[in-house]
Amino acid sequence: MDRLTEFELIDLFTRPAPREGEGVLVGIGDDAAVLRPPRSEDLAMTVDAVVEGVHFDRRFSAFDIGWKSLAVNLSDLAAMGARPLWALCALATPRAETRARLTGIGRGLAACALAHGLAVVGGNVTRASELSRAITAVGAVPKGRALGRGGARPGDALLVSGTLGDAALGLRPGAAAPLRRRQRRPTPRLALGQAIAPLAHAAVDVSDGLLQDLGHLCRASAVGAVVRLAQLPLSRAYRRAVDGAADPLEAALTGGEDYELVLAIPRRRVRAARALAAGVGVALTPIGEVIRSGGVTAVDAAGRPYRPRREGHDHLRVTGPREGARHA
Amino acid sequence: MDRLTEFELIDLFTRPAPREGEGVLVGIGDDAAVLRPPRSEDLAMTVDAVVEGVHFDRRFSAFDIGWKSLAVNLSDLAAMGARPLWALCALATPRAETRARLTGIGRGLAACALAHGLAVVGGNVTRASELSRAITAVGAVPKGRALGRGGARPGDALLVSGTLGDAALGLRPGAAAPLRRRQRRPTPRLALGQAIAPLAHAAVDVSDGLLQDLGHLCRASAVGAVVRLAQLPLSRAYRRAVDGAADPLEAALTGGEDYELVLAIPRRRVRAARALAAGVGVALTPIGEVIRSGGVTAVDAAGRPYRPRREGHDHLRVTGPREGARHA
Repeated sequence: MDRLTEFELIDLFTRPAPREGEGVLVGIGDDAAVLRPPRSEDLAMTVDAVVEGVHFDRRFSAFDIGWKSLAVNLSDLAAMGARPLWALCALATPRAETRARLTGIGRGLAACALAHGLAVVGGNVTRASELSRAITAVGAVPKGRALGRGGARPGDALLVSGTLGDAALGLRPGAAAPLRRRQRRPTPRLALGQAIAPLAHAAVDVSDGLLQDLGHLCRASAVGAVVRLAQLPLSRAYRRAVDGAADPLEAALTGGEDYELVLAIPRRRVRAARALAAGVGVALTPIGEVIRSGGVTAVDAAGRPYRPRREGHDHLRVTGPREGARHA
Repeated sequence: MDRLTEFELIDLFTRPAPREGEGVLVGIGDDAAVLRPPRSEDLAMTVDAVVEGVHFDRRFSAFDIGWKSLAVNLSDLAAMGARPLWALCALATPRAETRARLTGIGRGLAACALAHGLAVVGGNVTRASELSRAITAVGAVPKGRALGRGGARPGDALLVSGTLGDAALGLRPGAAAPLRRRQRRPTPRLALGQAIAPLAHAAVDVSDGLLQDLGHLCRASAVGAVVRLAQLPLSRAYRRAVDGAADPLEAALTGGEDYELVLAIPRRRVRAARALAAGVGVALTPIGEVIRSGGVTAVDAAGRPYRPRREGHDHLRVTGPREGARHA
């Protein structure tokens, strides 16, 4: 590592990644990338950082870190209904990191980029005392049609993709492999986001926990929401892991890092939306509805409200590996 | 600080910044920003990170950190001939940072954004053990006309804006105020880059030192270069600071962080280029010429080659506050 210059390092971690792609006129290697945006689309852009000891720890493989650091950004693009185009990655690394580890991070990033069809167009490496990555992802959305948090209306059905709470349980010592995988290799719901955007009023991705992220959607839309606890989609691994727990729904409601989409969809389009989702291989489960006001309430089958022990993650308060808060 | 949530923190450091601007359909506050790129232009994008103890230290005010973290990115846009549009900022912060310091960083960022007419469209805050910022800057360039490193031709004149070496000397204990200012509040040469792009064959900004950055330009263009030491533009403060030094040109040649532009310009356009530069208030000094091959050679008035003690910065090797290496 001491024998590697920064320029060699940038090569090391960006070499496996796809560097060419739609609209890439000048990629990595000049002062800036030169990109030609698609003519009839707007751009969606988001930045996210993952930091060792906060978002990942030594249980994560280098490949996991690379994958996850890009996937969390792509999840934001998914929530906008965007198709991914480009990513720019800044890596901060301690001197002691090995070449093998940096190469592994590059491979994980590359695999995630390849899987989702985007090009890595910018790289930056700097020295630091802890390993971190900040990634900016850019996607395209049909002009004037970006899906936002702000369009939900009273009466809309609330639906969520996949299952909830697995990623949070994946952090526990001895967690089952499917739960660990959800934590370390999240799947951004890009195909779903693009397919469903024309039918949905609003969307948000579950990065900080269902209740917290749904709260963002409600505030942006000036509405309230009712979540029906009995309808929350839980995986078999989740049910097994929480068997006998005092609060078996806590991880599903407040766990965070699921990177599923929560969608507000007019009731008459729910059937079409679920069919579309099935077409891209994702389950879409109705979990409640949008109401006029009153924040987010979760109720059990008897109508009793759920009182969470905490509402969602706040990185500056928790100590485990968790996702950070984001605005855009 | 412990009482601030991450959402409050994001507000704290992005609130002073201009959030509206050209093409901003949805700014900070949703999963991603939604942006409409200008119709007849390409986009230039670059990412850069600054880390405490590497790029700045406790001698920097919070305002300085905010200013510099954006300015170094805008310098990359300047080297492409781009006009700045948007920036996205990821902040990593230790728990112990004070509200005043984070607010100060936000103010410095905002001042730099306002001074250069761009909007801050994305923000992210995460916990970390050291303070760092990664910023992505996006600019617009006339379609197909981005200035790159790769267009220099033998016979071109080499010109540099402003003066060299001040920023490096500004790191020394007891440095004069103008030198400290160049280190802490660099001025990206955006107006110059846009004005001069139609006349220039190639450009690079001086972030890692004249010899090293000119080397990048030469490699990208497959040419060599001769730099005439007697012609290097040096400020009065620089001359005073190096009076009696064993190697008075070292900072100017290898110091880095000047954020001036080095331009390769056809000889017949040099007069017009200097007039244009004067029009935007920047001196443009001929410092040598592009040759067929042979790397970068610096020669004194008698034609003797200069042997630098080192060629430029490499963050993973040096210990002072310095800029990082970048590809795009």
